[in-house]
Amino acid sequence: MSDTSLPSAGFSITVRLALSADPGAAGRLATVVGQAGAITTALDVVESDADRMVVDLTCDTTDSHHAEQVTQILASMPDFDVKKVSDRTFLLHLGGKIEVKSKVPLRNRDDLSMAYTPGVARVCRAIADNPDDARRLTIKRNTVAVVSDGSAVLGLGNIGPEAAMPVMEGKAALFKKFADVDAWPVCLDTQDTDKIVDIVAAMAPTYGGINLEDIAAPRCFEIEARLRERLDIPVFHDDQHGTAIVVLAGLINALRVVGKEFKDIRVTVVGAGAAGTAIMRLLMQKGVGDIIAVDREGALWRGMDTDNETWKWIAENTNKDNYSGDLSGAVEGSDVFIGVSAPNILKGSDVAEMAENPIVFAMANPDPEINPQEAARYAAVVATGRSDQPNQINNVLAFPGVFRGLLDAQATGWRDEAALAASEAIADCVGEGKANPTYIIPSVFDSKVAPAVAEAVKKVSSGV
Amino acid sequence: MSDTSLPSAGFSITVRLALSADPGAAGRLATVVGQAGAITTALDVVESDADRMVVDLTCDTTDSHHAEQVTQILASMPDFDVKKVSDRTFLLHLGGKIEVKSKVPLRNRDDLSMAYTPGVARVCRAIADNPDDARRLTIKRNTVAVVSDGSAVLGLGNIGPEAAMPVMEGKAALFKKFADVDAWPVCLDTQDTDKIVDIVAAMAPTYGGINLEDIAAPRCFEIEARLRERLDIPVFHDDQHGTAIVVLAGLINALRVVGKEFKDIRVTVVGAGAAGTAIMRLLMQKGVGDIIAVDREGALWRGMDTDNETWKWIAENTNKDNYSGDLSGAVEGSDVFIGVSAPNILKGSDVAEMAENPIVFAMANPDPEINPQEAARYAAVVATGRSDQPNQINNVLAFPGVFRGLLDAQATGWRDEAALAASEAIADCVGEGKANPTYIIPSVFDSKVAPAVAEAVKKVSSGV
Repeated sequence: MSDTSLPSAGFSITVRLALSADPGAAGRLATVVGQAGAITTALDVVESDADRMVVDLTCDTTDSHHAEQVTQILASMPDFDVKKVSDRTFLLHLGGKIEVKSKVPLRNRDDLSMAYTPGVARVCRAIADNPDDARRLTIKRNTVAVVSDGSAVLGLGNIGPEAAMPVMEGKAALFKKFADVDAWPVCLDTQDTDKIVDIVAAMAPTYGGINLEDIAAPRCFEIEARLRERLDIPVFHDDQHGTAIVVLAGLINALRVVGKEFKDIRVTVVGAGAAGTAIMRLLMQKGVGDIIAVDREGALWRGMDTDNETWKWIAENTNKDNYSGDLSGAVEGSDVFIGVSAPNILKGSDVAEMAENPIVFAMANPDPEINPQEAARYAAVVATGRSDQPNQINNVLAFPGVFRGLLDAQATGWRDEAALAASEAIADCVGEGKANPTYIIPSVFDSKVAPAVAEAVKKVSSGV
Repeated sequence: MSDTSLPSAGFSITVRLALSADPGAAGRLATVVGQAGAITTALDVVESDADRMVVDLTCDTTDSHHAEQVTQILASMPDFDVKKVSDRTFLLHLGGKIEVKSKVPLRNRDDLSMAYTPGVARVCRAIADNPDDARRLTIKRNTVAVVSDGSAVLGLGNIGPEAAMPVMEGKAALFKKFADVDAWPVCLDTQDTDKIVDIVAAMAPTYGGINLEDIAAPRCFEIEARLRERLDIPVFHDDQHGTAIVVLAGLINALRVVGKEFKDIRVTVVGAGAAGTAIMRLLMQKGVGDIIAVDREGALWRGMDTDNETWKWIAENTNKDNYSGDLSGAVEGSDVFIGVSAPNILKGSDVAEMAENPIVFAMANPDPEINPQEAARYAAVVATGRSDQPNQINNVLAFPGVFRGLLDAQATGWRDEAALAASEAIADCVGEGKANPTYIIPSVFDSKVAPAVAEAVKKVSSGV
């Protein structure tokens, strides 16, 4: 749905250009930018004399292609002399987005002798005598590894560990901002399951939790399961459980809006990868009436020809009527559509054939399974992954609070109940009786969310 | 030499006690503390009424045992009622010593869309297209891993990865303080050479350099060599090269003080482990006249019975006269003694038999090879690893500046010339003509040192 996208700061450029100093010039510039579909957010004069000035024009565009178009239009105008174009997102990334700071003073010899030798030796010996003290006397108390092999980064696919770093750094920044968790990116130059498991297990002493991130399915399932088996700290694959938690939170309120109950609904989940599988498992835990899973080949059913062990499990445990047809047929009569798949695979006419007051979560990124305006013609509630639409399903609502709760509980593992508890905490942040078709999920900047999630997760994770 | 140690903040305790409010009570308290050999650094009144008060007495002691003695003496006094004793070093370590901070604002949707999705995707794609951009657009630009397997931590030995954390965190804090380098502790739960090499190689995409730390010899040699072969970022084992750089810096000025030249001197190096071996290699690079290496069994000589490949190499490349006796015989006639071994193995009478104006670097920690006062009776220059003696040989003088220089050069490897350059830069910080027997090395708090080292290392590391 790039054609319907709104300009965003994520695609903001600053154009330095010279123009004449006549009173109408700035106005002409604003008009040109507006006609090009961009939104001017700042105009700063860099230098000026009697008849000429140089300005920095900052504007939001819809995507990289649009940013180039805007630049070209400005360059083609005889009034304006474009000197330089800088991309604000790249400027922000120079040198990386996170840093390591000392929490202790190091002003003089006394400070040094406590934080380092000789004083530190005593702390080391205490931990050697009682390894559990590491959770008290080291950063393990508050630190999470964000581990990726770069194999399934955002919608970009297998771009490798170096290119995954900006996402993991951003994630670390969000952990700190929303839940005061210290998170560190661990981007690994291997995509071998055994090696990843061994590496993460070996480096675990430093961390109080492991956040797996952007690792391709089905490898991610095995890595998570084996690490959970091996480690005495919680392991959480955010693409699975973070997404599932926020989807369920949104669905809790969406069902309140349409007045249906989990036990009575049928849900079609499209995209049976990491996120889709976790969503289905969590919906089962929540006691949903029926689920039909759909992937590229159609519904997953008992009798299908597949080597995928996860798909076999799904086919065994969903799809009461053993439906074996295509997406349209699966959606027909469903109460809820949940898409974590590909752009534009759902038609308005499909939504029209769903049960009464249908709910559509179209979360493919950046372009949803159906244009949300089109979906809204038929659906009672529509949610997407986009920030420029109502009801954004965004993992940022879950992972910071989840790990805050796990660290505060000094959890030694992950309990599935924690996901249910986190979903309910997020849903409740909308407020009793306040949910409506365009407000089923709190804003990512709602400061109530992370503490509520942390509290809920901590409660069910202590002594795990 | 614990018996001669001075009280230090590294062993500082705070004792909360109640005492009578008569005018003499505080004086009696100070006297008792002083007689017990501790130094009062603070006396804070916590609460007080007409005839009684509660105070927090903070005092430096010489070691853990002494701290307990002081507490017991206070508790045994009828005037004082000891309520609680807290160890300031442990208090300082609660929750760990470093944290991760965001360098970018995350106040609103615009910030989020640049630092995270959707804007971040563009930065990821740029790095995927040109992996070298990782050094510009991610924390790789300024970040070093401090890697340990916990096998040779300080003088504590093989205490494991959890117990090694306080040292590595302290090191990270020092990196930031002295050279604005972001360093991250990587404490590994394996002591298998192959695994350590594979793990560090796999996690390298995040880092611009690797600082190996407190890994036992001879494993540390192979790990460093193999990682240097495999990686396109510099790998530096601080226990080897950091120590060697600072020793050479001190020796440059010590020779200036006694008016000797490297080519003319014979050096006895005691302790042929990681540090000793690196010191010998660097001295060879510097063109030193002769070296005799000594370990537990005596001098390393051609003809000795050993499986240790490093020792064989040392025997082949040092010891011109192929001396095969004990420590005393090796030291006899030597110009320089360098000890990185064990306490109290060198006698004053040994120093008396050295060449004229002998130089003694006795760096065993915490207790040197010879009491420095005893050594000073015969030696022209004495240095130790201790902060309470003149001429402290401390790695903090080297590693921050070394990595600052490597990162600024965007070095893809390590050149041995960098060690020589760093040593000379440190030595020159003492200032032309300013060196004297008690000032051959700058203070660890001398803010000129790290920038000077960085500049020197950068110059020889660009394009490596």
